[in-house]
Amino acid sequence: MTTTVRTPVAIVGAGPAGLMLAHLLDEAGIDSVIVDLRTRGEIESTIRAGILEQGTVELLDTIGEHSRARTVGRRHDGIELRFEGEGHRIDFPSLTGRSAWLYPQHEVLKDLIAARLAAGQDLRFGVTVDRIDDSNPDRPRVLAADADGQELVIEADFVVGADGSRSVVRPTVTGSSQGGYFREYPFAWFGILCEAPPSSEELIYSNSPDGFALISQRSETVQRMYFQCDPALDPDSLSEAEIWENMQKRVPGTRLIEGPIFQRDVLRFRSFVAHAMRRGRVAIIGDAAHTVPPTGAKGMNLAIADVALLHVALRALLLENDARLIDSFEERAMQRIWKAQHFSWWLTTMLHVTDDASDFDRRRQLGELRSIVESTAGQTYVAEGYTGWPLAAES
Amino acid sequence: MTTTVRTPVAIVGAGPAGLMLAHLLDEAGIDSVIVDLRTRGEIESTIRAGILEQGTVELLDTIGEHSRARTVGRRHDGIELRFEGEGHRIDFPSLTGRSAWLYPQHEVLKDLIAARLAAGQDLRFGVTVDRIDDSNPDRPRVLAADADGQELVIEADFVVGADGSRSVVRPTVTGSSQGGYFREYPFAWFGILCEAPPSSEELIYSNSPDGFALISQRSETVQRMYFQCDPALDPDSLSEAEIWENMQKRVPGTRLIEGPIFQRDVLRFRSFVAHAMRRGRVAIIGDAAHTVPPTGAKGMNLAIADVALLHVALRALLLENDARLIDSFEERAMQRIWKAQHFSWWLTTMLHVTDDASDFDRRRQLGELRSIVESTAGQTYVAEGYTGWPLAAES
Repeated sequence: MTTTVRTPVAIVGAGPAGLMLAHLLDEAGIDSVIVDLRTRGEIESTIRAGILEQGTVELLDTIGEHSRARTVGRRHDGIELRFEGEGHRIDFPSLTGRSAWLYPQHEVLKDLIAARLAAGQDLRFGVTVDRIDDSNPDRPRVLAADADGQELVIEADFVVGADGSRSVVRPTVTGSSQGGYFREYPFAWFGILCEAPPSSEELIYSNSPDGFALISQRSETVQRMYFQCDPALDPDSLSEAEIWENMQKRVPGTRLIEGPIFQRDVLRFRSFVAHAMRRGRVAIIGDAAHTVPPTGAKGMNLAIADVALLHVALRALLLENDARLIDSFEERAMQRIWKAQHFSWWLTTMLHVTDDASDFDRRRQLGELRSIVESTAGQTYVAEGYTGWPLAAES
Repeated sequence: MTTTVRTPVAIVGAGPAGLMLAHLLDEAGIDSVIVDLRTRGEIESTIRAGILEQGTVELLDTIGEHSRARTVGRRHDGIELRFEGEGHRIDFPSLTGRSAWLYPQHEVLKDLIAARLAAGQDLRFGVTVDRIDDSNPDRPRVLAADADGQELVIEADFVVGADGSRSVVRPTVTGSSQGGYFREYPFAWFGILCEAPPSSEELIYSNSPDGFALISQRSETVQRMYFQCDPALDPDSLSEAEIWENMQKRVPGTRLIEGPIFQRDVLRFRSFVAHAMRRGRVAIIGDAAHTVPPTGAKGMNLAIADVALLHVALRALLLENDARLIDSFEERAMQRIWKAQHFSWWLTTMLHVTDDASDFDRRRQLGELRSIVESTAGQTYVAEGYTGWPLAAES
């Protein structure tokens, strides 16, 4: 028993990129079908990144009252760079006229899903995509099984893979399951959620002789913090006291407010950029096309930036049969992706301590941090990357 | 037959740092004796760096009419960063209000030597310093042999080692012959002097898939150029045609004006910072205390920056018996040194291609270059480092 669905755009993955793309296409009068392997509950409860660029918030504004980024989320007008026991604030508005927002990704997803469902989106959870069939290049098909195991075929004018770092769509575009540029890092983040009030109003990025720490926030009563650790570390191998000791010694000069730890995880670091983002009428965006290390919080923002380019290109292609923007989509997207890869790599290498770093490297690193905080231009250059380069114009 | 000379300040090394220090001390009424292993002819003919920071030129102005930096040297209001076949100009005055000057180091040395001799400086060439005797910490002694092999002892209130990267004074300060932080780089520069008019009015720093090249100038008829090479390369192993082929392919999009090559050398890359710059009444400055890779031309400028701090500290110590500035000299000098080490490392790694760089690293590097040229803040941050952070105030 096979169900066949016809739609202008088939979107694999109900993450920020897929949902936002469907919304922007809908605004232009283009229908789409979204499928995702996960249940709605899983999607809405997975803890991910929490910092939105100004352009991401502005694009979320277009979903209307469903966006709570500005009301429940918190505007952050700066971060603290901390090294040699001293904090140095980078003030975003005075340097760039822009800000960032603290608003967790799963809240963004709740807003986007609510908005799409309210708009009548065909949004299917629990769908396992087997592969993309592009044997007819003008009419690619998503071959899948629905939540009940029934065969599902989606025939579309265009297929978009927004299905994350283990993308099923990617091989159709790159010709191989990986097909990309990689970089591994010799460390990871030990992340916790704890019941405590904020230790700081804004994020603290701390470089210490013992390694990096990030002091972040979630709400008035729940806090998110990270410290640099070995990627092989078992998250359950540390006692709460050991976790606090590790956290605290990485932010010398700051007094952390402690509280019961109710979630802990080890985040691996990995940079990836696919060799290609489009083949014919199949494209990949977001984590399917690129992943960044968490430093700098570029992951979700970069996915949204892909969407800002792709929806305009799809409008031109599907409404006006004009392929010029889709033909240049990959090249234009890659310019921002490699800038963001650099920014993420840069913040990462500037703040983390690696075992193979010599004493020279360590002091050079402190020389870099000092160069930045002593220079308005250096601070501005950091703030521009952090709050996000302007998104592509609408057309 | 031992000659003993008594002087307030004994300076080992008649390079830019030693000569400039003697001048500034003289301005304050403090005598000094300078000794150097080399002959005047050797000193005045060795080809070295050619870019002066604005602060260096301003300090050279204080030697009066002897300084030809502004008349014979040329003000450079920018550099070109070249990558992916396109040039991007960094305009110094509009970004920083400052400039750099093209004026070779051996010309600086001619000016400084002429000025010191005119002022009656005790300046002795061909002197071999054996070691520093600081057994009486208030009265350190330079133990040496003069040009005729006669024993020479200089007894001073303060001894300064400005004697370059193979410093004889350094062990007295650091306690060991090296005693510092090191970094090696897996490449070198193949440098040439050729008879040709300028290929470009300003310096071109070019990142290409084949490696780095620097297109520099010397005069209307002589040009200085460099291309990245293996450190083991024998400078005589390449024909002129091969040299030009290497040079030209590293600056795609630019047409070099060729001419007979009359000097060629391979410059090794090395970063070094001594563990200490002062012990008691003995200090080291310039290359004796730190060396940088040539990218960014910080070497001589950093030596002059050391002098800007040290001469004020010596005035306070020797004229007012106030040790506070000499006690904080090392810490203050090191702040600039590590910023300059970072700047040199940064320009180097941004522009050079290494064999072990992955495709990811290569594209990330281009993402960095694009981030800089697309951002006024990024360009300003580069221009600040290049034209030089302001020197320490006079007191």
